[in-house]
Amino acid sequence: MATFGMIEYEQANADVRAIYDDIMATRQVDSVNNFWKAIAHDLVALRRTWESVKQIMAPGALDALTKEMVYLAVSATNQCGYCIASHTAAARKAGMTDAMFAELMAVVGMANESNRLASGYQVEIDERFRTT
Amino acid sequence: MATFGMIEYEQANADVRAIYDDIMATRQVDSVNNFWKAIAHDLVALRRTWESVKQIMAPGALDALTKEMVYLAVSATNQCGYCIASHTAAARKAGMTDAMFAELMAVVGMANESNRLASGYQVEIDERFRTT
Amino acid sequence: MATFGMIEYEQANADVRAIYDDIMATRQVDSVNNFWKAIAHDLVALRRTWESVKQIMAPGALDALTKEMVYLAVSATNQCGYCIASHTAAARKAGMTDAMFAELMAVVGMANESNRLASGYQVEIDERFRTT
Amino acid sequence: MATFGMIEYEQANADVRAIYDDIMATRQVDSVNNFWKAIAHDLVALRRTWESVKQIMAPGALDALTKEMVYLAVSATNQCGYCIASHTAAARKAGMTDAMFAELMAVVGMANESNRLASGYQVEIDERFRTT
Amino acid sequence: MATFGMIEYEQANADVRAIYDDIMATRQVDSVNNFWKAIAHDLVALRRTWESVKQIMAPGALDALTKEMVYLAVSATNQCGYCIASHTAAARKAGMTDAMFAELMAVVGMANESNRLASGYQVEIDERFRTT
Amino acid sequence: MATFGMIEYEQANADVRAIYDDIMATRQVDSVNNFWKAIAHDLVALRRTWESVKQIMAPGALDALTKEMVYLAVSATNQCGYCIASHTAAARKAGMTDAMFAELMAVVGMANESNRLASGYQVEIDERFRTT
Repeated sequence: MATFGMIEYEQANADVRAIYDDIMATRQVDSVNNFWKAIAHDLVALRRTWESVKQIMAPGALDALTKEMVYLAVSATNQCGYCIASHTAAARKAGMTDAMFAELMAVVGMANESNRLASGYQVEIDERFRTT
Repeated sequence: MATFGMIEYEQANADVRAIYDDIMATRQVDSVNNFWKAIAHDLVALRRTWESVKQIMAPGALDALTKEMVYLAVSATNQCGYCIASHTAAARKAGMTDAMFAELMAVVGMANESNRLASGYQVEIDERFRTT
Repeated sequence: MATFGMIEYEQANADVRAIYDDIMATRQVDSVNNFWKAIAHDLVALRRTWESVKQIMAPGALDALTKEMVYLAVSATNQCGYCIASHTAAARKAGMTDAMFAELMAVVGMANESNRLASGYQVEIDERFRTT
Repeated sequence: MATFGMIEYEQANADVRAIYDDIMATRQVDSVNNFWKAIAHDLVALRRTWESVKQIMAPGALDALTKEMVYLAVSATNQCGYCIASHTAAARKAGMTDAMFAELMAVVGMANESNRLASGYQVEIDERFRTT
Repeated sequence: MATFGMIEYEQANADVRAIYDDIMATRQVDSVNNFWKAIAHDLVALRRTWESVKQIMAPGALDALTKEMVYLAVSATNQCGYCIASHTAAARKAGMTDAMFAELMAVVGMANESNRLASGYQVEIDERFRTT
Repeated sequence: MATFGMIEYEQANADVRAIYDDIMATRQVDSVNNFWKAIAHDLVALRRTWESVKQIMAPGALDALTKEMVYLAVSATNQCGYCIASHTAAARKAGMTDAMFAELMAVVGMANESNRLASGYQVEIDERFRTT
């Protein structure tokens, strides 16, 4: 279970509720994930983490779906069970199809394989990659 | 240096050259990266790895640029110096702008951060993520 | 379940019991964690691991609480579920408060984020860090 | 080299300079690390990252030295060359002695070892760790 | 649960069944692991992954048992629960004894420890290792 | 460079020399790697690490070559440059041929790939792997 237990909306004080409200409004959902309830004991961390996530995940040069898939790719590489589950859901909500998921995992798998081949074979960086 | 030294095109036998030729034709470049030259001593591995990369990185449900950025996201997460250098170049060739790179790295950083918060706080997977 | 099943105190031979006794006496607890019971089939490994842990975790230039929090920081970074659970308990026993845990996780999260930014942006080591 | 080259103070615009100034004032140093110069092309990321680092690394329930050592422990676990170099320097500045560094590395090494033993032996979490 | 649910033999089409049949024949078992059932929605990925695994894991310069133990060593290092469980079973089937497992885990643990010491202490590569 | 500089044999005191002598005698080499020289400032750590390595790497249920290859597999997975260089050399000295190295890397690459597929697809552990 979460280390401190989780803070449900009903138990939350006004500051925490305001952040929960912003999460739900921004994401157009009617509840917040356990992740937020678990870190809510530390209001400063809750606010900082949410403000960062909100800013980083907003569509910009990259659209929301691409960002969610990158998030999922990192989580699969790190093998974070919670994050894989929650960001698979988020990516689907943003439009990831089964075919996109399958291709995403294929790239993640291949990158993890070739990363180790490059390191294990001690491949030197090509001269032309060294110049900006 | 690469564990076995690298096999340059001039030294390569016909089988290796055929793969080098396919790499250059597929990618529309006029040389192959050190990665391929380093693993070319093992023809079976060279062919298997290239056939897999060629299949996986071809545009499909995801376009080529998205795939290159996911590759880079994984490489940055694993902190593979060679792979970061070569796939930053590949992603730029595929159209990644400075702004896209900066947003990509921001997502990679945040995902790596929140992966550890989720694990460290022992957050349980939300019930609604458990059902397909 | 543990790969070999676990060796409980009652089943253990004299050599294993002596180590279990030392673990309980050193830690001032009345049972040993599953970790030790799981590796106890290999007496040499059990003894070597315990002697190393005992030596490394003893207060020295760093106090016991700091050491436990560092252990937890590494376990959260590696996302080892067992280790996070057991070392959160150990750190709390050593005096870690809720506020200390929250700050610890914040540092762990930020370090995991900035590690990837430094690698992804291919930041060169500052000249002044290269000299001892 | 850094992906975009680095932005030196002399080249920086007023917004970037204001952040560089705050970094130097907060840390009581007279230059900023390459890390900040490398990410400064993205003003939003520069500001967000610095504000987070500043908030997280400030002394609180944990003192500055403990935080720097935890940062270094994570960086060594992730094997981030840049981060190890810069945070070893930062931890020394905050008071880390040779003896403290040696003990820190010993804990990092042992935690990385035992994390894999716990996972490899498939050790189940002790029942008493499951309750908060 | 698996992201898409799993495709059982009874539900599988002829192409998927042919691969399942080849897996069972090659491994001399009478069912396929959940891993294959989970990725079977993507026939191309299923075929590519199986053909690669079949080629890589076949006895060659290294025997089957050594290969299975290396697979397990990597899985324990990455802390992949599924892979540890399935490859412990596979290695046992290939002849891994309790004593071999214990020694394997000891090497895995020590390598994970010394990897971080080498990185944390910033050890330079010995000149004589730099020449092929 | 190594954090503290390295302790060469000529500079070493009698306790450190005795360990250097044992390393060279055990490994039948006439110098010690930089790794040992880098950690030698902490005699307790030097002795503990060497005694553990000596015990773990001695031939037993697994032969010396297998152990060295497992060490290399872990180091390639963790992408530890120093450890890859030194353990490639050690494995070659123990008898690893070019063909064995190539197959070893292929297994390491595939394991790293399939670890992420298993995690990313959230594959459940097969019931028959759950019983010892």
